[in-house]
Amino acid sequence: MAESPVGTPATDLPVAFSDPVYLAAVVDLLGAIAYGELSAFERLSEDGKLAPSLKDKAELARMASTEFGHFEGLRNRLAELGADPFDAMQPFVTPFEAFHARTAPADWLEGLVKAYVGDGLAADFYREIAMFLDADTRTLIVESLADAGQSKFVIDRVRSAIVDDPRVGGRLALWGRRLMGEALSQAQRVAAERDALSALLAGGVDRPGMDLAAIGRLFTRLTDNHSQRMDTLGLAP
Amino acid sequence: MAESPVGTPATDLPVAFSDPVYLAAVVDLLGAIAYGELSAFERLSEDGKLAPSLKDKAELARMASTEFGHFEGLRNRLAELGADPFDAMQPFVTPFEAFHARTAPADWLEGLVKAYVGDGLAADFYREIAMFLDADTRTLIVESLADAGQSKFVIDRVRSAIVDDPRVGGRLALWGRRLMGEALSQAQRVAAERDALSALLAGGVDRPGMDLAAIGRLFTRLTDNHSQRMDTLGLAP
Repeated sequence: MAESPVGTPATDLPVAFSDPVYLAAVVDLLGAIAYGELSAFERLSEDGKLAPSLKDKAELARMASTEFGHFEGLRNRLAELGADPFDAMQPFVTPFEAFHARTAPADWLEGLVKAYVGDGLAADFYREIAMFLDADTRTLIVESLADAGQSKFVIDRVRSAIVDDPRVGGRLALWGRRLMGEALSQAQRVAAERDALSALLAGGVDRPGMDLAAIGRLFTRLTDNHSQRMDTLGLAP
Repeated sequence: MAESPVGTPATDLPVAFSDPVYLAAVVDLLGAIAYGELSAFERLSEDGKLAPSLKDKAELARMASTEFGHFEGLRNRLAELGADPFDAMQPFVTPFEAFHARTAPADWLEGLVKAYVGDGLAADFYREIAMFLDADTRTLIVESLADAGQSKFVIDRVRSAIVDDPRVGGRLALWGRRLMGEALSQAQRVAAERDALSALLAGGVDRPGMDLAAIGRLFTRLTDNHSQRMDTLGLAP
């Protein structure tokens, strides 16, 4: 393609980044999402060991590789913003690992439900925050959260497992509720500890934010979407 | 791009594949390499958990994703050859898993040496066999075995660990010898069990093969290259 008549190097940042508070908040957010992707890579690879067939194992490896691709995009953007990507991720290691330690799947199906329900919840949450950000960052976040093919695969496998043995449905429904509870508990902890992220949600003089009522509505949307996903899996929310 | 004037669909197979013995041998070989790549993906992901830093963890995840990309190329080729890729891989699950069970790294450095020495040995072996094959298959194999960036990374990490603590060198040298022994033992087992692969090495009326003297020279080349790699790592072969 010919060069654009008005040169706009990729490293030119939107004007919003001239505010250091905004820059710090975006670095924090991208750091959280990037570590989430790296952690998703690790979890999906690990769950692949529980796969009942080579084909299922390969499918989980494919999802993991897709998540790693998203991680690379986020890491590159963090570097463009002048941040050390690994420093930006570091504060999120403990809460993510705490979440994974408390929700280690006992078997293949629990791993699948976690991939679908957990990633879906995280994606909903980050997409909500992205609406308060500049267009470049918003696009990057939305693309990073694109479904890596989990949904169709997980829905198919979980629904057929319930057909084979309806008792599986009760156990996985409990598991889904537990995942939601642990995720919210870790998210609250992150929100309480990361001032830059909280400031982003609260807004600024020249930036819209969320008041308590808006945060309440956000919470309702997250739980509604979670119930919808459980329903899609054939599980009582 | 414009279409080529002489259409050559990717599914057109070289004439060598009209020989069912040749086809079976190539399916066997690609099945072995494909499972090796999937298994490398799993092992590199697993070793990433031992990484001393987030940056090292991300580097192992990158290598794992590269191996998965190679796996996808092999799987697609197996399908083009009319084989079920997962059936083709199945006979190699047991020997590969036996190798990995016997060579589970005790720490981060052992994992790195295994990635470098083990993948190097496997790549040498498959490249030798690929010389007896049609050009398409040979190219696919050589591309699948391309260094996923292990070499530079591993050499750097292992050499600096030895500088920090020279005793590490003695332990890793022993480890390298053990890896070589276990790999040869599993390779012999595969060769003894897979008639199609052995037939490929032995050649046919219209295809060159290896006599015992040639197999002896192959073995010498493999061990020479192994010693070279150990030397590059700063380890006594």
